[in-house]
Amino acid sequence: MSGMGLILILAESAVELVPQELVKHPSVLKLAKKRGKKPNEILLDRSYHHGAMKSLKDAEKRGRPDIVHTTLLETLGTPLNREGLLETYIHTVDNRIIEINSNVRLPVNYERFARLLEQLYAVGRVPEVDEPLLMIRKQTLSQLIGEIKPSTTVAFTTLGEYEYLSELCKEIAIERKPAILIGAFPRGHFSEETLRLAKRAVRIDREALEAWVVASRAVYEYELAIGLPKRRLR
Amino acid sequence: MSGMGLILILAESAVELVPQELVKHPSVLKLAKKRGKKPNEILLDRSYHHGAMKSLKDAEKRGRPDIVHTTLLETLGTPLNREGLLETYIHTVDNRIIEINSNVRLPVNYERFARLLEQLYAVGRVPEVDEPLLMIRKQTLSQLIGEIKPSTTVAFTTLGEYEYLSELCKEIAIERKPAILIGAFPRGHFSEETLRLAKRAVRIDREALEAWVVASRAVYEYELAIGLPKRRLR
Repeated sequence: MSGMGLILILAESAVELVPQELVKHPSVLKLAKKRGKKPNEILLDRSYHHGAMKSLKDAEKRGRPDIVHTTLLETLGTPLNREGLLETYIHTVDNRIIEINSNVRLPVNYERFARLLEQLYAVGRVPEVDEPLLMIRKQTLSQLIGEIKPSTTVAFTTLGEYEYLSELCKEIAIERKPAILIGAFPRGHFSEETLRLAKRAVRIDREALEAWVVASRAVYEYELAIGLPKRRLR
Repeated sequence: MSGMGLILILAESAVELVPQELVKHPSVLKLAKKRGKKPNEILLDRSYHHGAMKSLKDAEKRGRPDIVHTTLLETLGTPLNREGLLETYIHTVDNRIIEINSNVRLPVNYERFARLLEQLYAVGRVPEVDEPLLMIRKQTLSQLIGEIKPSTTVAFTTLGEYEYLSELCKEIAIERKPAILIGAFPRGHFSEETLRLAKRAVRIDREALEAWVVASRAVYEYELAIGLPKRRLR
């Protein structure tokens, strides 16, 4: 029953539509007009809304969809995912869950990825017909974990205990249904609520590492722990 | 003398300015006008020039600066680079060498990264004053390798021999000045010329993996081989 696969949850991801309090800000209006959308139909993005975000609560953790994009490009291209052994969820700061079909080929261009997310928020799934590659629903992280019921949940955070990633992944690999939580936000820490959902909180380096660095290493060490590289080179 | 650092060369990278034969194509003219630049001052990018690229020689290997962007985000954020033990060069398909200062904080937004590369092509270094973070020069891969003189050079390619990455990196780690070549292009193989520059050609998976997946794993295994994670958690 071991090595059945890994559940990757990008938690508190800095993805959301422009919140109500910013819909009248000039930088938001300008970008919405350019894209032919309403202000609350476009993604909050620090690259374009830096000025507008100054007054926003928890601004340092928000408006960075690029983190999810880069991290997904990294993990969806791994042998683990190609083998169908990686299950990926995005939990967003506005409490949506985006479910990723492991067969999806994401746009490599960031702007196209951002437009795809906006479409997803608007219509709930893409493509609208046939097997969905991305699906979004209103759900908290706690509800998601209640639904998928991992056998263990590990959060990566600099608030956690020092742990060698290789040893951690060996422990995870003998679990029936392990899940890992990686924060896909630029600064700050998981909320207390998120931390309470994890059985363990671990840190793997002296410094805070970017989500894509942590994710790529965790997936790779999990592959090593289940012997995937050897199986694939045989 | 071992574990002194790793040289990462992204080779034949799909980065170049719009070539002469495409400067009059409508999609190129439109984008150049929008950006207030001449057609041959903007980057070739399949996301915008797909139609124009149909007639281009070796088109399948060109026009994907996003590959370099995602790969650099992945490798520059690693502990190895933060320790100053990763030396990074981009060799482009139009035979430029871009030297990356390990202290650079690249734009996370792809469009800003692309504009930065265009500025680099135009002025040769950024920033123009103070210590340069990015420098570009006309140089072939062969000339670069002649200049930096690695003690060994390993090319990652599906044309190479099967090799476990962990074993490869243990061998590399006892080298005085090892270099690895990773192709930062979307399809196809290294040229014969590039392959001749490598002492060894290795493949690490049954399938072709994206440059950022190979790079993140190679850097991480090199870190393990020199004992960096243990040193940083002590």
